Amino acid sequence: MPKYVYDFTEGNKDQKDLLGGKGANLAEMTNMGIPVPPGFTVTTEACKYYLHHGSVPDELADQVTAALSQIEKNTGKGFGDADNPLLLSVRSGAKFSMPGMMDTVLNIGLNNETIDGLVALTGNERFAWDSYRRLIHMFGDTVLGVDGELFEDVMDAEKDAKGATNDLALDAKDLKRVTEKYKAIVAEQTGEPFPDDPRTQVDLAIKSVFDSWNTDRAILYRRQERIPGDLGTAVNVQAMVFGNMGGDSYTGVAFTRDPASGAQGAYGDWLADAQGEDVVAGIRNAQPLVELQSADQAAYDDLIDIMARLEGHYRDLCDIEFTIERGKLWMLQTRVGKRTAGAAFVMAGHMVDEGLIDMDEALSRVNGAQLTQLMFPHFDASAARGAALTTGIAASPGAAVGRIVFDSDTAEEWADNGETVILVRRETTPDDLKGMVAANGILTTRGGKTSHAAVVARGMGKTCVCGAEELELNLAARTLKAPDGSVFNQGDLVSIDGTSGTVFAGEVPVQDSPVVQYFEGKVAVDHDPLVSAVHRLLTHADEKRRLRVRANADTPDDAQRARRFGAEGIGLCRTEHMFLGDRRQLVENLILADGDEGRMAALDALRPMQKGDYLEILEAMDGLPVIVRLLDPPLHEFLPDYTELEVEWALARAKGARLDDDRARVFDAVHRMHEQNPMLGLRGVRLGLVIEGLYEMQVKALSEAAAELIKAGKSPRPEVMIPLTATVQEFEIMHDRSEKVFAEVEAEYGVTLDIPVGTMIEVPRAALTAGEIAEQAEFFSFGTNDLTQMTWAFSRDDVEGEFFGRYIELGIFGVSPFESIDPAGVGRLVKIATDDGKAANTDLEVGVCGEHGGDPASIHFFDAAGVDYVSCSPFRVPVARLEAGRAALGEGGSDTR
Amino acid sequence: MPKYVYDFTEGNKDQKDLLGGKGANLAEMTNMGIPVPPGFTVTTEACKYYLHHGSVPDELADQVTAALSQIEKNTGKGFGDADNPLLLSVRSGAKFSMPGMMDTVLNIGLNNETIDGLVALTGNERFAWDSYRRLIHMFGDTVLGVDGELFEDVMDAEKDAKGATNDLALDAKDLKRVTEKYKAIVAEQTGEPFPDDPRTQVDLAIKSVFDSWNTDRAILYRRQERIPGDLGTAVNVQAMVFGNMGGDSYTGVAFTRDPASGAQGAYGDWLADAQGEDVVAGIRNAQPLVELQSADQAAYDDLIDIMARLEGHYRDLCDIEFTIERGKLWMLQTRVGKRTAGAAFVMAGHMVDEGLIDMDEALSRVNGAQLTQLMFPHFDASAARGAALTTGIAASPGAAVGRIVFDSDTAEEWADNGETVILVRRETTPDDLKGMVAANGILTTRGGKTSHAAVVARGMGKTCVCGAEELELNLAARTLKAPDGSVFNQGDLVSIDGTSGTVFAGEVPVQDSPVVQYFEGKVAVDHDPLVSAVHRLLTHADEKRRLRVRANADTPDDAQRARRFGAEGIGLCRTEHMFLGDRRQLVENLILADGDEGRMAALDALRPMQKGDYLEILEAMDGLPVIVRLLDPPLHEFLPDYTELEVEWALARAKGARLDDDRARVFDAVHRMHEQNPMLGLRGVRLGLVIEGLYEMQVKALSEAAAELIKAGKSPRPEVMIPLTATVQEFEIMHDRSEKVFAEVEAEYGVTLDIPVGTMIEVPRAALTAGEIAEQAEFFSFGTNDLTQMTWAFSRDDVEGEFFGRYIELGIFGVSPFESIDPAGVGRLVKIATDDGKAANTDLEVGVCGEHGGDPASIHFFDAAGVDYVSCSPFRVPVARLEAGRAALGEGGSDTR
Repeated sequence: MPKYVYDFTEGNKDQKDLLGGKGANLAEMTNMGIPVPPGFTVTTEACKYYLHHGSVPDELADQVTAALSQIEKNTGKGFGDADNPLLLSVRSGAKFSMPGMMDTVLNIGLNNETIDGLVALTGNERFAWDSYRRLIHMFGDTVLGVDGELFEDVMDAEKDAKGATNDLALDAKDLKRVTEKYKAIVAEQTGEPFPDDPRTQVDLAIKSVFDSWNTDRAILYRRQERIPGDLGTAVNVQAMVFGNMGGDSYTGVAFTRDPASGAQGAYGDWLADAQGEDVVAGIRNAQPLVELQSADQAAYDDLIDIMARLEGHYRDLCDIEFTIERGKLWMLQTRVGKRTAGAAFVMAGHMVDEGLIDMDEALSRVNGAQLTQLMFPHFDASAARGAALTTGIAASPGAAVGRIVFDSDTAEEWADNGETVILVRRETTPDDLKGMVAANGILTTRGGKTSHAAVVARGMGKTCVCGAEELELNLAARTLKAPDGSVFNQGDLVSIDGTSGTVFAGEVPVQDSPVVQYFEGKVAVDHDPLVSAVHRLLTHADEKRRLRVRANADTPDDAQRARRFGAEGIGLCRTEHMFLGDRRQLVENLILADGDEGRMAALDALRPMQKGDYLEILEAMDGLPVIVRLLDPPLHEFLPDYTELEVEWALARAKGARLDDDRARVFDAVHRMHEQNPMLGLRGVRLGLVIEGLYEMQVKALSEAAAELIKAGKSPRPEVMIPLTATVQEFEIMHDRSEKVFAEVEAEYGVTLDIPVGTMIEVPRAALTAGEIAEQAEFFSFGTNDLTQMTWAFSRDDVEGEFFGRYIELGIFGVSPFESIDPAGVGRLVKIATDDGKAANTDLEVGVCGEHGGDPASIHFFDAAGVDYVSCSPFRVPVARLEAGRAALGEGGSDTR
Repeated sequence: MPKYVYDFTEGNKDQKDLLGGKGANLAEMTNMGIPVPPGFTVTTEACKYYLHHGSVPDELADQVTAALSQIEKNTGKGFGDADNPLLLSVRSGAKFSMPGMMDTVLNIGLNNETIDGLVALTGNERFAWDSYRRLIHMFGDTVLGVDGELFEDVMDAEKDAKGATNDLALDAKDLKRVTEKYKAIVAEQTGEPFPDDPRTQVDLAIKSVFDSWNTDRAILYRRQERIPGDLGTAVNVQAMVFGNMGGDSYTGVAFTRDPASGAQGAYGDWLADAQGEDVVAGIRNAQPLVELQSADQAAYDDLIDIMARLEGHYRDLCDIEFTIERGKLWMLQTRVGKRTAGAAFVMAGHMVDEGLIDMDEALSRVNGAQLTQLMFPHFDASAARGAALTTGIAASPGAAVGRIVFDSDTAEEWADNGETVILVRRETTPDDLKGMVAANGILTTRGGKTSHAAVVARGMGKTCVCGAEELELNLAARTLKAPDGSVFNQGDLVSIDGTSGTVFAGEVPVQDSPVVQYFEGKVAVDHDPLVSAVHRLLTHADEKRRLRVRANADTPDDAQRARRFGAEGIGLCRTEHMFLGDRRQLVENLILADGDEGRMAALDALRPMQKGDYLEILEAMDGLPVIVRLLDPPLHEFLPDYTELEVEWALARAKGARLDDDRARVFDAVHRMHEQNPMLGLRGVRLGLVIEGLYEMQVKALSEAAAELIKAGKSPRPEVMIPLTATVQEFEIMHDRSEKVFAEVEAEYGVTLDIPVGTMIEVPRAALTAGEIAEQAEFFSFGTNDLTQMTWAFSRDDVEGEFFGRYIELGIFGVSPFESIDPAGVGRLVKIATDDGKAANTDLEVGVCGEHGGDPASIHFFDAAGVDYVSCSPFRVPVARLEAGRAALGEGGSDTR
């Protein structure tokens, strides 16, 4: 016979699938001999049966009857017994806790007869009637589907009649009247009297919990969190105990150590003559746990003893709820407790020292999201003097204060003069890179989490608030107007909180991250317990990890920083920005060149500059590999905007004017290069193949830089990376041309160069034909940003505004696939390409250089997929090291969200 | 010891890998006892050895010596024998014939001594010296690398000196002098005297053939044709025979039946006292084969007999070269002969009747490309009265004559009045669809083979010339100016040839395709031998094929045509065009709707129109499935152009004017909807999810149409297809919503609907997660156009102009992946999705509705991949039926290019 009901004595903490989280832990405590009010769990299997058949299994009724008898036996009370009534709580308890599901119905078992027993038993008439009216309210609302406001209205009317504002003003008589009115409401709304029969109450409550599995909100939550829809929920039915039975009763919540700081020692709050909700709701001021001693030394000692046992048993921070009913301690719940990021690290270190866990376990207890949080500066909230002006999208965490500037040139200029500035733009473009580097923070009035500003800022580890749409930006007037009407000019101080998205007027004090100061060598490892713990766990992660960690860095500064943060090389050095600024004119010459001569002249002028760039970055990373990606973006990104030019021309014509020759040539080129879908157009290796000499120039500049450094006794390790390869033929041609350049430079300089040539894998076809490509390539690097765009067919530039929001609402995405790798789609391509590539070329080195290289969940995926290294922004390098270490622990370390 | 040399008696026709095509067939004939001048083949293995080591294998010299002795023995002549010299030809012969490789060196073995023997032997001094000077020219040019023009110059000077224009004016003495001068040139250019030693001549010629495997042109050709680079070529060394030894010698080429019409009976041309090149070059007028009887009855009888034997042996049309040297017939070459498209069909039918081959074999002898050719009308070239004006890109084959119109409205209006028109546009857009339907042909001055005009025209089977850039189109003046300065106005007649790209002034007579007339039921099956053969082979293909064939059709007319052409249903009915024209205003209302009300009003207005569309098409296809794809393109396609609006607004502002409110709303919407990469933006199912009610409206209209037809006793079989699905969640939501609509309509109409809901697989992620999607979907249809765009990361709108041309030059593409499926990339996704989909849902129906559904090579791929049906434009349906039948034959039918 299928077993659908487990007494708490029959389960254990590992049965979360069957008993849910709450039930499994209650069973565990029961079996540890810890005082838990007796009860039982109806399994998730019963729920699944009910959801599938629309009725509970036949066996359930008898099993519940037997379990109820057991509770009666254990408590000495009778369910429905008018003299000594047993009251029950019914709570849902799924494997994963889930908002939107039915939470709790208390006081089940009360009716017109047992109410008298409760009065007699407690000697507290008001308590008894309050319990009864609460049952009808909770049951009516959650089980019978009566609108809760109808009950609230009754209470409000009663209080109004007494001129009171507080429930406590109502006495037993009042509450008895309320109870009768509640019953009338139920009868009227449901067409049936409130069920008096205690057994009917418990049966209906159980079914109601089952039904709550499929509320819209629960379904949406599961879809977003990718929790399977067929798990079902368990139901816990438990004898009630009361912390509100008078001055010798107490209730409280506690942690086995401080969840905020991680400090050792029990920590909690309690109230006398109260129920659990009262502590949580903060109706009265709760007292610190230690003071419970003076109220009830024996119960306190019991509690401390039990908490120590629980921590020893769970080998982790435990979060508990307890009630002391007239001197008797009862444990109502325990679970592994939530903690702050800092506490997680500190606690993990302590627990190792205490011998509770080993270093591997400690590493599995912390994660990259926590480390990220610890690396950002933050505002001292209590000191926030300026009022919040508005809240935008929290795009890149941290806290930044500075003077408003509206353009990148000013940002640079002011920063050079020692000012800290906040760059305020409608949206940013690649042209704003220098301004973003110079600024302390970035604030935009458009765009979301995956806009240019957000992505670049996160890459730089720079605070950014995006899409603050309530702010009116007037670039012409150089003003920013807040919703409250206040106007900010260039130079005015603002503070932006990239963790919450809040924008403040004026300066809010900022606290630096000691963890970053430690990475930067500005504080010692023993600076504080947090720094020590981070150091210790990162060191262990480094010992454990299989994945290597490199950085994406385009400048010598970034490269040096990455090295300090532990990067083992540069996985992606983009050459795009090297074509901006002063060099833009040369690029324009290149694009506008009529024939070979003009083009070669432009290339010849660019080469020494490129060589200079490469020299600097190779020197900064001497001895470590530096992967240089050849020019990737559509050339028209270096030219004026198509629509703006059309407008300019139309206006000129309207005035009877004409464009001068130079402008006309630009106009022609922009027209010629205009594409409907530039992301799918002339870019990457296509540029290298269409613009003869461009890639050769870059390869030559890089080879020359390496040759010079070799002659100077250095150990440069450049590698050449071809972007956007879709087919082995493209790669083959560029590889051949690169080899020719290497040979030329070797002959010129009299040195031997060993420069591997590899390719980005960022086009689905490259992943699908990786076996062919690997026969020619020395390395692969997954460009997961573009790979995600092509695999999903949406562009990162466009999707945000139009439908990403709606998709998240509909539960189609839990997390944007640009933030965390999509394992089933993009991830499958990564796996195919890694497997096929390594099968074809056992020496092939495989890395990842997209945004995902620094994302914890993605790092675990890449580790499992057999990738050799990840490359991420310098700021994310420590996170990647930590997560790579955790990934190496296997299953235990995979819980990263 | 490795065997590198095969005497012709040692090989056979199946050894093409080792002996090359020419060598294998020479061996085959030799072994059939057919008179072939003796000779031998140096194998491709020797070539591979040479290419790898840079020298011929040691064993080769002795093997060549032995083989030469055998020729001497067989001919009774001596190689280098001054009295009775043996002369040799040396020719390349790879497995696949390949332009750019060395072709032939004749007369090897001549030198200062053997020349006298040749004079004595032939009694023809002029012939002997002409042979000698030809040897030095050919050998100097192709083996020694001397510039051929130097030799030409000598000949020209000699002729000038005699005041002659013809080589025949030079006598033996002149040619002797020419020979000496040639030798001097060789000595001067190479620094070495011309090699006199016959053996040296043959050895150098062999190596030279090997070297020619790696000429740039040969490499490029192989890359384009995807011929492996490591096959190597064989070399054929053969005794010379001479058709130019006087009036009793002849030479000719012949076919075993007429390669133009397919008519039975030998067919060929011959010349007396001539060499093979003379026949091919057409220097003298060749005589029909039958007249050879009167010249040499015995040789003619031999020849006819041998040709019959060859055809019986090869069981196919044979193409032969022969020489009759003083009464003795020699066969110099045979191969399976090329034929016209019509001849292929007629011949295949005849050969079945003759018992030469069976129907399967006959089916494998014809292909879809040939059938396509037979379906287009063509110009009567001889009657081309108008001069060619220019040549554009041959975008969609056929011949069309009509009056020029410059816009779609005029096209429609004139066509309604019975005019045939040619629509002339810079480029076409979806707005031109009606004009394209109305026009007889389409001519554009921009865009290439994959431009909108080209793709749509091919889909319609309508003649189209694209990118005729030499024509100056002045839309304002409504004129078209040709390079010769002539100007064409609206209403002027032009003729366009979509097969060659030529544009003619005036009317060129057009001949209709009898095959299409037969499909259309306008001529009977016994109309002519071609129609009968096509009918017979298509019927056989239908019996054989596993793949079903449906059509892509958006209108009742197209649907009816598709049905006549043999379509078994509609695989893709697009709803886009249903939103254009008069309904555009409603769509604008929909897009501009402020709230739910406005949107619902717009949808309510559209629904009856959609229902009308569906009624018509379901009626036309009654009893057959009709897959309706819900709205797919970006909404902004239905709004004015972003840049044009910006210009309009800028001009208005410049004049101090402002946009009226309606225009301003349009402007705002266009701005809001503007996307950097519309192909990767808000389209497909994203529209359905973001614009509440849109897809529901379409599903409701379709369901209502079906319900009405059911009530009228018809058998409508609609299916609903969701476009651009990337993840199962999108599909699940739209599927649920569709089911709700079906239930509503069932209740309203009191009918039972059975409408499958499926999805396009056109986003790589959909293919990669096909297993998940198949659990929810009833069918898949591969949208291989979009799948190709995303998999390769290039957009069909953009690539043409910028880099496709360069890519084809560089050999990166042989054929555009938009024309024929890319098996390694896109094809792999098709395979993954088909396998995973069918594994997850054994009832899943899998089809293809992209352009590739009508491409022969792609159809073979889809058959092998396990797809259930292909869907293509109505015009391509017969081709798809034929190729699906051929695919079912297995390997034998796979040669489709």
